[in-house]
Amino acid sequence: MNEMNKKQSADADKIAVKLKQGDRRALARAITLVESSRSDHRATAQALLNIILPDTGDSIRIGISGTPGVGKSTFIEAFGKLLTAAGHKVAVLTIDPSSQRSGGSILGDKTRMEELVRDPNAFIRPSPSGGSLGGVARRTREAMLLTEAAGFDVILIETVGVGQSETTVAEMVDVFLLLLAPAGGDELQGIKRGVMELADIVVINKADGDLKSAAARAAAEYKGAIGLMRPKSKNWKPKVLMVSALNKIGIDKLWETIGKYRAARGSDNELADQRRDQAVAWMWSELGDSLMARFRAHDVVAARIKQMEADVKAAQIAPTTAAEKLLEIFLEK
Amino acid sequence: MNEMNKKQSADADKIAVKLKQGDRRALARAITLVESSRSDHRATAQALLNIILPDTGDSIRIGISGTPGVGKSTFIEAFGKLLTAAGHKVAVLTIDPSSQRSGGSILGDKTRMEELVRDPNAFIRPSPSGGSLGGVARRTREAMLLTEAAGFDVILIETVGVGQSETTVAEMVDVFLLLLAPAGGDELQGIKRGVMELADIVVINKADGDLKSAAARAAAEYKGAIGLMRPKSKNWKPKVLMVSALNKIGIDKLWETIGKYRAARGSDNELADQRRDQAVAWMWSELGDSLMARFRAHDVVAARIKQMEADVKAAQIAPTTAAEKLLEIFLEK
Repeated sequence: MNEMNKKQSADADKIAVKLKQGDRRALARAITLVESSRSDHRATAQALLNIILPDTGDSIRIGISGTPGVGKSTFIEAFGKLLTAAGHKVAVLTIDPSSQRSGGSILGDKTRMEELVRDPNAFIRPSPSGGSLGGVARRTREAMLLTEAAGFDVILIETVGVGQSETTVAEMVDVFLLLLAPAGGDELQGIKRGVMELADIVVINKADGDLKSAAARAAAEYKGAIGLMRPKSKNWKPKVLMVSALNKIGIDKLWETIGKYRAARGSDNELADQRRDQAVAWMWSELGDSLMARFRAHDVVAARIKQMEADVKAAQIAPTTAAEKLLEIFLEK
Repeated sequence: MNEMNKKQSADADKIAVKLKQGDRRALARAITLVESSRSDHRATAQALLNIILPDTGDSIRIGISGTPGVGKSTFIEAFGKLLTAAGHKVAVLTIDPSSQRSGGSILGDKTRMEELVRDPNAFIRPSPSGGSLGGVARRTREAMLLTEAAGFDVILIETVGVGQSETTVAEMVDVFLLLLAPAGGDELQGIKRGVMELADIVVINKADGDLKSAAARAAAEYKGAIGLMRPKSKNWKPKVLMVSALNKIGIDKLWETIGKYRAARGSDNELADQRRDQAVAWMWSELGDSLMARFRAHDVVAARIKQMEADVKAAQIAPTTAAEKLLEIFLEK
C-alpha cells in the first residue's frame, strides 16, 4: 500500500461514494476490481475496502449448499423474491472453484434465475473464475463486503457441493443451509461426511407432488441423524425443514427460522464473535496464500525450482532438505 | 544445514553405518531424531536422511486405512506374520493426527499386535504425536525412508479414518488398501466420499462365521460401486477381496494381488513416476509448512500479530490489508 499513488486513492474515494449510495454500476465495477489480478487494481481495491469497512457487516450472511439436481436455482429465486417483496435488498454470490475448468460455471448462468435477475432489489454475481479455492474465496469475501456497503442486507452465498467449497462457505457466513432432495432410503449418500455437521438448517426441497411423502420420510431421517451429532453452537440445535421452491411453500417458514437462529445465537454475542473469528481466520489464510505466491515469484527461487525438483525426483536430495535450501534462498535476500 | 557442526555430521555418519547394517536400536534412535523438534536433532536427522537416501526405495509401501472396529490390528498382525514367514522384513508405521488430543493413540498401543511385536523381522512404530497432520506426515515419511535403509522391504502405513489422513497416506504409498467390515445394506456410510476413490484394493474383513454371507454381499456391492468410478491408473482397476484376518484366510491371495498390482503398474514405470511425483509434492508441502512456521517465529511479526488480529476483529482494517502489512514486515527485514 505504501507506494499506492494518488490516482488509485482518488479512484477508491470516488467509487466508495457511489457505492454507499447503492449505485449498482459502481458495485459491479468495485467487484471487478477485487477480482482483478493487476497490481494497480488490487491497490485500488484494497484502498476501497478499507474506506468502506465501517459500512459493512449490517446484513445476514447466508450460505447455501446443495449438489446439482437439488433445485438450488429455483430455491434461490423463490427465496430471493420473497425477501425483496418484504423490502430486503438481496445479493447472490457464488463460489464454484470448478468454474474455470468446466469452461464457465452453470452457477454463473444468470438466466437460471429469470425473475430475480430483473429485480431492482437483487444483485446476482457469478463465481469469480480461475485460481485456487483460496483465491476464489478471497474475491467472494471482498465482494460480500462491497455488497454490504452498497446497502444489501441479505447476502446469499451459494456453492456447489464439490471439494472443500462447503467448508470455505461455512467459514464466511452467519448461517449455513444445506439443501437436499427427498432421497430414498436412509442413506446420506452424495453428501460428504463433514458437510452435514456444517448445517445450521437442513432444507428438504421438492416437498411437492409425488415426492411429498418421500420428503417427509427424508426429513424424519435427517432429524434422527442430526440428533446424534454434537451441535456447533450451545444456543442452536440444527433444524430440518421441508420446502417446495417450485410451489413457493415453506420458504416463509424458513426465513422465520433464520430469524429465530439469529435471535438464539445473537443473544450472547455468539454470532458477532463468529464474525470476528472468521475475519482473523481470513487474514491467516490470506497470509498463507500470499506468502507462497511471493515465494514462487522470487527470482532466484524461480530459477532454482526446476533443478531442485529434478534432484528430488532423482533422489539426489531429500525433499525436506530441498525445501530447506529453497527457503534459505528466499529468506536470505 | 550451512551451520551444521562437525559433531552432528559425525553423529549422522555413525548412525547411518549401523542403520544400513539393520541395527534396530540405531533405527529407533534415528526415528526419534526425525521426530524431535530440537534444531540440533533436526540437523542431524537431515544429514542422516541425505546419507541414506541412495539406500531407500527398495520396498513396497502399502497404505492401510479402515475405521475403528473393522479389525485393522488383527489384519495387520495376520498380514505381517505371513510376510515375515515368507522372508520379508516388515515395518509398521502409523499416522494418527488425533493421537495427541486423545492422550495416546490406541493405534500406538503395541500390545494390540502381540505376535508381530515380538517378531525379529518386524518393526512397529506408533504414530508420532502432536502437531498438525502435515507435521505428523513429514515425520512418518522420514521414518519410512529410515526403515527402508535398515533393510525393511515391506512398509505398512496404517491410518485411522479421521480427517484428511487417508489422503495423506495415499500420497506417500505405492498401493492403498481400504479395509472394510461386512456392512449391511447397500450403504457406503461411514466411509468419506473421496476415500473409496483412493483405494487400489478394497479388503472386506471378517469374512468368517455368521458374517460370511454378509461379506459376500458387501463385496458384490463394492465391486458395483467401484465399477462406476474412473480408475486412478490406466493399468489397474481396483479389486475387491474378502479376507478373514481372524482365521488367516485370503491374506495370501491379497499379497498375490498386490504382486499383480506392482507388475501391472510397474510395466510402464507408472509406480516409479508416482514415487517421483510424491517426493516433489512432499517438498512443496514441507515448504508451505516451514514458510508459515518461520513467519510466526519472526520477531517483529510475532510482536505485531496480536494487535493486528485485534484490529481485524474490530473491523479497523480489512483482513487482506492486514495480511499484506504483516507480509511486508516479514519480507522487509
